[in-house]
Amino acid sequence: LTTFRITVAYDGTAFRGWQVQPGARTIQGALEAAAAALNRRPTRVLGAGRTDAGVHARGQAARVEIDRPIDAGRLPLALNANLPDEVVVWRAEEVPPDFHPVRDAVAKHYRYTFHVARYADPRTRRFVHRVPHAPDLGLMRRAAAHLVGRRDFAGFQKSGSPRDTTVRTLARLDLAAEGDYIHVDLVGDGFLYGMARNLAGTLLRAGQSRLDPDSLPAALASRDRSAAGPLLPARGLTLMAVLYGHDTGGDA
Amino acid sequence: LTTFRITVAYDGTAFRGWQVQPGARTIQGALEAAAAALNRRPTRVLGAGRTDAGVHARGQAARVEIDRPIDAGRLPLALNANLPDEVVVWRAEEVPPDFHPVRDAVAKHYRYTFHVARYADPRTRRFVHRVPHAPDLGLMRRAAAHLVGRRDFAGFQKSGSPRDTTVRTLARLDLAAEGDYIHVDLVGDGFLYGMARNLAGTLLRAGQSRLDPDSLPAALASRDRSAAGPLLPARGLTLMAVLYGHDTGGDA
Repeated sequence: LTTFRITVAYDGTAFRGWQVQPGARTIQGALEAAAAALNRRPTRVLGAGRTDAGVHARGQAARVEIDRPIDAGRLPLALNANLPDEVVVWRAEEVPPDFHPVRDAVAKHYRYTFHVARYADPRTRRFVHRVPHAPDLGLMRRAAAHLVGRRDFAGFQKSGSPRDTTVRTLARLDLAAEGDYIHVDLVGDGFLYGMARNLAGTLLRAGQSRLDPDSLPAALASRDRSAAGPLLPARGLTLMAVLYGHDTGGDA
Repeated sequence: LTTFRITVAYDGTAFRGWQVQPGARTIQGALEAAAAALNRRPTRVLGAGRTDAGVHARGQAARVEIDRPIDAGRLPLALNANLPDEVVVWRAEEVPPDFHPVRDAVAKHYRYTFHVARYADPRTRRFVHRVPHAPDLGLMRRAAAHLVGRRDFAGFQKSGSPRDTTVRTLARLDLAAEGDYIHVDLVGDGFLYGMARNLAGTLLRAGQSRLDPDSLPAALASRDRSAAGPLLPARGLTLMAVLYGHDTGGDA
């Protein structure tokens, strides 16, 4: 029995999110079925982040135990053989049996992508949120500067999410334009439920001059949902990477 | 009754190509249904190029007549309302009634995209041909240099394609690397059936050192299919643009 950390990419469009739910098509469910086919027994696959319905991943991380001896270099192929096209395991690394994908994660990198265009491009529409008019990047960056750091993000989560603490450290909140696309890169030690999409919505609203960037310190202090931007659609969000420390063999 | 040239983007994955066929889902069929809904009568949509099953487009051009008065700026929205998500009309221009999308086209731009990766990326897999090892761009460019110009491409079409002449002018055959992706841009006054995918296959084989670039002048002269590279999968091919002269209001 060997423990692996696998790195997984997926197109989340046609899934009800990461987490196994009875009667629903989920990423975790697809991976557990693929692992069960190798192990010939029900097998748990524990993910680093429970991405929402419609959210994508390039570098989701998960823990899986495989009964029979298999080389880390061959495990992706063996799992992919039993996965749908939208889910691809592209790396596996042997880790200590006590590896825990959530507890051991040092940081996560999410990306929210806007497509500035009057009409959707059918080749990218599944992975972007389209906005007809270009937001002002300068205003978005000014808003971002107020949000980076160790903050109480209580106002930047889906309403009704129960958490012991809502303080998180946002290490990076960067904007990059690439042709008609704007990428918002968010790196932090943890994200509240809906927080990445909420922050993206806050930056967008600032870029549309519908929210004053300099109102954000007060919005953070108020811990009030209504002071932040809207929760943007899941399709624009991708979990790019989960970063681990050297002690667990990661690449952080 | 007004005649329009429309510019259309599509994800061709789930279509049996451009051309209407009984009982098959086709791009032309989808557009004709959308135009018929506006005109309340069967309506013909004539395309500039009959792309194969699985081939995509960013800038396919087509001719359509609309009975009721409608502004060119509003026609895309009116058609998109009756189109599936994978087909998007993103421009419409009024053209003279005698406009013919095939005869009036000056050139076409196709792009074939390779993804150099051990595993597919679910976010791009529909639009690329994956190759596990990086081909040699220098060898590919040497092969390309032999293929540009006015040539008899009889050996570079799907076997059994009947044409009066197989001479075409290839104005550009350029390679561009972008991260793990390699784009092959082909611009020419016309393409034989399968020619773009055949040329891409020839370049790939050269880049894999499985075909000597300097054998290509002899391959062209032989007019023999077996001297060229393989016909690569449709998924990697996108019709980027159809270019028209100023007389038809185009942007060539």
